Amino acid sequence: MNRDFLNLINESLLNKYHPAQSRLHEAINYSLSAGGKRIRPLLVLTTLDSLGGNAHDGLPFGIALEMIHTYSLIHDDLPAMDNDDYRRGKLTNHKRFDEATAILAGDALLTDAFQCILNTQLNAEIKLSLINLLSTASGSNGMVYGQMLDMQGEHKTLTLNELERIHIHKTGELIRAAIVSAGIIMNFNDAQIEQLNIIGKNVGLMFQIKDDILDVEGSFENIGKTVGSDLNNDKSTYVSLLGLEASKQLLNDKLTETYDALKTLQPINDNLKTLITYIVERNK
Amino acid sequence: MNRDFLNLINESLLNKYHPAQSRLHEAINYSLSAGGKRIRPLLVLTTLDSLGGNAHDGLPFGIALEMIHTYSLIHDDLPAMDNDDYRRGKLTNHKRFDEATAILAGDALLTDAFQCILNTQLNAEIKLSLINLLSTASGSNGMVYGQMLDMQGEHKTLTLNELERIHIHKTGELIRAAIVSAGIIMNFNDAQIEQLNIIGKNVGLMFQIKDDILDVEGSFENIGKTVGSDLNNDKSTYVSLLGLEASKQLLNDKLTETYDALKTLQPINDNLKTLITYIVERNK
Repeated sequence: MNRDFLNLINESLLNKYHPAQSRLHEAINYSLSAGGKRIRPLLVLTTLDSLGGNAHDGLPFGIALEMIHTYSLIHDDLPAMDNDDYRRGKLTNHKRFDEATAILAGDALLTDAFQCILNTQLNAEIKLSLINLLSTASGSNGMVYGQMLDMQGEHKTLTLNELERIHIHKTGELIRAAIVSAGIIMNFNDAQIEQLNIIGKNVGLMFQIKDDILDVEGSFENIGKTVGSDLNNDKSTYVSLLGLEASKQLLNDKLTETYDALKTLQPINDNLKTLITYIVERNK
Repeated sequence: MNRDFLNLINESLLNKYHPAQSRLHEAINYSLSAGGKRIRPLLVLTTLDSLGGNAHDGLPFGIALEMIHTYSLIHDDLPAMDNDDYRRGKLTNHKRFDEATAILAGDALLTDAFQCILNTQLNAEIKLSLINLLSTASGSNGMVYGQMLDMQGEHKTLTLNELERIHIHKTGELIRAAIVSAGIIMNFNDAQIEQLNIIGKNVGLMFQIKDDILDVEGSFENIGKTVGSDLNNDKSTYVSLLGLEASKQLLNDKLTETYDALKTLQPINDNLKTLITYIVERNK
């Protein structure tokens, strides 16, 4: 993982909203500065970097993705949804502020995300393609749809197909968008964009499979929640449906497929491969 | 009001989401088809029509505004916000479905609104300006900010300035955006856009002043809520701060100012003037 990129991303996120401006701005800043791995913006910048583009061109879109991701966490934590009191060791937004403020902070982050893309040097057609990608990946046929499927799938034993459908939308779409955005910014042709789509979808799925494995194998200190909490919550996971060994095998198969797709794009360095490997081998 | 425009708008809104596709789509369609005056899209189309543009060019932006407006109503009705069980004589979204679905339906509508603007024949720079307008008018310094101020102002006696600040943001910004969008689509110069800004701000304020007057003077059958409900809720309104007569006088002054600004733009017909007059003289 590139420390410079991470610093750039964090600096950008933390300077966006000034807590003193209003209670709304304070609540937004609270969640944006709560940390997190910044996987999505890191993927945008690193994909550009590895494919010979200018990483800085991807910062606004990466920030937009992180804002969308952050709003989705704020709303997911609400009592009507997952009803979580803590996130990343801090009180969730509605616990620190109140429910109305948390709903509005999420709404504002989602809306403002589209603004990010406008303030760039990219040409107009590329900006419009990025806005299309952001909206498609996060709207009624993207992330929000996945969240809805997830809510409907609770306390049911899902088929592997149903589970995959949830994750492709709920977490997969934003990760796919991160990787594909680099190709849009670099004016890739359709065949190249298709390879990025394959890589993006795989990284999204691997991220989730790894999450499910960590839920069983991780230690409480590392993952910050009770080990086995998904199983105890009667939630279908890759591990509950496939078993631990087959889940690890699936992860490996997807990883090989991903490396192959990446090779066809002739990366100029190994940074993207390293970041993907980090996502798959992380222990939290 | 132009019946053809209204039909066009309603048809467009009702065909966007197919209830059979998923529970999420069903919930979105439920709120989009719950009626309403469609003031915002009507203003877009009518402004274009009166200033010599092509009304149809404004349909996608008008639909986007109505989607944003609809999401804001769904979220405002939630128990954590205004806690309303009925809206326009129908159960509110979270009462008909559930809270989680209502939150997600709002999120999806807000996200998808940006998609609308992309699917048009307008040139790329105009699309980007419209996306900028939509995002600015509805985000953390626009509508959502106004909603936050409104929540913070409850059970307090506000000054006239504070009340105006709430309304300029909460209802005013989307109405201003509706009117200004016509100028963007028609490639107006800065001076012309400034006149549209004045008209848009005034119409937004007049809409709210009229609402406050109706709350005192309207009949239950017409406005669909208990007459005097704002006063009973200890909510500051134009009428509670200025009195009924001064509120009507303010409305009249704003109307004159608005007609004057409109005249400088040399409208080719009276349709916009008629629509604005309808907004100010409506009895519900």
